Amino acid sequence: MFKFTYDIPTRIYFGGDQLSNLGPELKKFGKRVLLCYGGGSIKRNGLYDKIKAEIEKAGLELFELGGIEPNPRVTSVQRGAQICKDENIDVLLAVGGGSVIDCTKFVGAARFYDGDPWDLVIRKAPITDCLPIVTVLTLAATGSEMDCGGVITNLKTNDKIGMGSPLMRPKVSFLDPANTFTVSSYQTACGSADIFSHLVETYFNDKGSMYMLDTFMEGMMKTVVKYAPVAVEHPKDEEARANLMWTSSWAINDFVSSCQSCAWSCHPMEHQLSAYYDITHGLGLAILTPRWMRYVLDESTAERFRNFAVAVFGISPDLPPMDAAKAGIIEVERFLFEDLGLTRTLTELGIDRTHFSEMAKKACEAKGGKVLKGYKHLSPEDIEKIYEMCL
Amino acid sequence: MFKFTYDIPTRIYFGGDQLSNLGPELKKFGKRVLLCYGGGSIKRNGLYDKIKAEIEKAGLELFELGGIEPNPRVTSVQRGAQICKDENIDVLLAVGGGSVIDCTKFVGAARFYDGDPWDLVIRKAPITDCLPIVTVLTLAATGSEMDCGGVITNLKTNDKIGMGSPLMRPKVSFLDPANTFTVSSYQTACGSADIFSHLVETYFNDKGSMYMLDTFMEGMMKTVVKYAPVAVEHPKDEEARANLMWTSSWAINDFVSSCQSCAWSCHPMEHQLSAYYDITHGLGLAILTPRWMRYVLDESTAERFRNFAVAVFGISPDLPPMDAAKAGIIEVERFLFEDLGLTRTLTELGIDRTHFSEMAKKACEAKGGKVLKGYKHLSPEDIEKIYEMCL
Repeated sequence: MFKFTYDIPTRIYFGGDQLSNLGPELKKFGKRVLLCYGGGSIKRNGLYDKIKAEIEKAGLELFELGGIEPNPRVTSVQRGAQICKDENIDVLLAVGGGSVIDCTKFVGAARFYDGDPWDLVIRKAPITDCLPIVTVLTLAATGSEMDCGGVITNLKTNDKIGMGSPLMRPKVSFLDPANTFTVSSYQTACGSADIFSHLVETYFNDKGSMYMLDTFMEGMMKTVVKYAPVAVEHPKDEEARANLMWTSSWAINDFVSSCQSCAWSCHPMEHQLSAYYDITHGLGLAILTPRWMRYVLDESTAERFRNFAVAVFGISPDLPPMDAAKAGIIEVERFLFEDLGLTRTLTELGIDRTHFSEMAKKACEAKGGKVLKGYKHLSPEDIEKIYEMCL
Repeated sequence: MFKFTYDIPTRIYFGGDQLSNLGPELKKFGKRVLLCYGGGSIKRNGLYDKIKAEIEKAGLELFELGGIEPNPRVTSVQRGAQICKDENIDVLLAVGGGSVIDCTKFVGAARFYDGDPWDLVIRKAPITDCLPIVTVLTLAATGSEMDCGGVITNLKTNDKIGMGSPLMRPKVSFLDPANTFTVSSYQTACGSADIFSHLVETYFNDKGSMYMLDTFMEGMMKTVVKYAPVAVEHPKDEEARANLMWTSSWAINDFVSSCQSCAWSCHPMEHQLSAYYDITHGLGLAILTPRWMRYVLDESTAERFRNFAVAVFGISPDLPPMDAAKAGIIEVERFLFEDLGLTRTLTELGIDRTHFSEMAKKACEAKGGKVLKGYKHLSPEDIEKIYEMCL
């Protein structure tokens, strides 16, 4: 708890009118830039043209990897890595949300690997190097703009697996809240649920935490609870967008976790949901999180849940711990399903129990064990019960 | 408020048993190391020997600059810079508290300047380069281990001036809470008052702030209020020392200020106190801070003081803002003078009003103006009144 190495050197250009720094930053790493992006929204909203102009102004050569999917596929990683090899790319520029940045990270790593990139995701082969990565963020959610990890989907095997390496941490990221003004209310809500979940996963861990970092996490959870509904309602509210964006980065950049990996609970369960049903990651997390909270709340965890409820939702510290804890979970539900308007059940998404048993096993296996060793250890049977609670 | 560049690449080795990383880290910068330290407490507590052993193990050449003063003098900077030039030093290793690290920063900058190092402090000459700096922290207080600034005293002119440059930010710092177990209760209290003041100065600024960062500052102030009395009472409490140490770095490393300089109030006033009377910086801040708070509290600032009181001291949000604000200031006094046991008045330190008028003018001039442009602008007359309140 009190021993760790802090090493988060990503440079951030926050706010508007910062793109003039893009060319010079890219140039530090070389001349040949691979621009990675998704379904083309950046072409519709003008960001693509602005970025292209900066790249041209800096005299750099532009190559493109478009069409990266939400829940990005290993096939896109393969496609990108091939371009890097064929065109001798020097630096990667990811423009998009977490999916685009995650994919770009693995493109950068796969550039230095001759086999199937999926080997890197499933840890069959080690990540030995990575092209430098610069990002322009367009969605506050995954924190990929400042962290080491990424999540890749393999449709052939129905797998969605998270993996990371310090080599993949972006060197520079451009965070302009205005680039998220066009994000839909639904995606804003899902992204906010994702940020909130990162904090919940880190706050509730089995290794303990430093009080100072607890207060940071509580402050960030309060920030999401305060501003996510504002951004859903008023998409161009700069204050709300700025707070959500900067929180997305710090929720998961390894600072509040003291740069130590603590095992998560809801994310591994959700990855199975979106691998099987291709639902939005943040929505899956929103549905799972309060159920997981109810499932693991007991005498041994009530104190921690009480602290959470008091600090984040202003529940009275005078209530008995179990009552305060339950009141906090009700507030989480109110936030996710009422304030953000997210769908409350898997049933409403047309998902039934057909694959629950299989998914529960896979959630454990993806983390390399028979049991999910999170805040409370969860067996496949436990996980199946939590999925059932989501129906 | 929403536009800034975040760039804080200092790597931190936190906790015990990390010194084996010292040699390899120094070696990245060269072979010739100048070890900078203070009055020799590191020789008495064994840290000096441990560090020397690591340097020898790495096959590096060791040079020494000892005897750096609390409130470090420009004469020490001069002495260090001369060694750097004569011995062609590659890297500086500061082992100590803020005074040692501050002095080391200016040694690193003065290495590349041929005139009087004081020119760099008073901005007569620009800082154009700096030797790489590695630190081993022995006192949680100034945050110099992760920030860009330093404060240097000139006894000839009775000046104590703060100055900074990103070039002076340490590359690597070793933060082992155990290295502060031998810090006296008095120095622990003063260091904690210094951390608390950094947060107060940043929290109360005239440029506004991001809510998310407000919550970080509030969390750090809560952390100091919670743990400083514990460390004063139980010097070897690792949890308390760890929380204070990591808070000291983040209170002032430019993160919560969004890397924007906002003008401070109590620090410039205190620098005159310790320049004239050589009192401990943190003690001067403790005496000044609540008086400054009372002086600037009015209808226009009550709301902010209320937020502070509610978040940091749990004052009821239902009170009228002015009442809540005043209750918060009473809590600040209780924390500094009762919990930490710091001296309450200048009179008790044998300081009278003789130099107040002169000091008040100098406090403004040191910041380059006729008025101190902090949270509320303070004229020399205002400052004199605040000094008077401290008697």
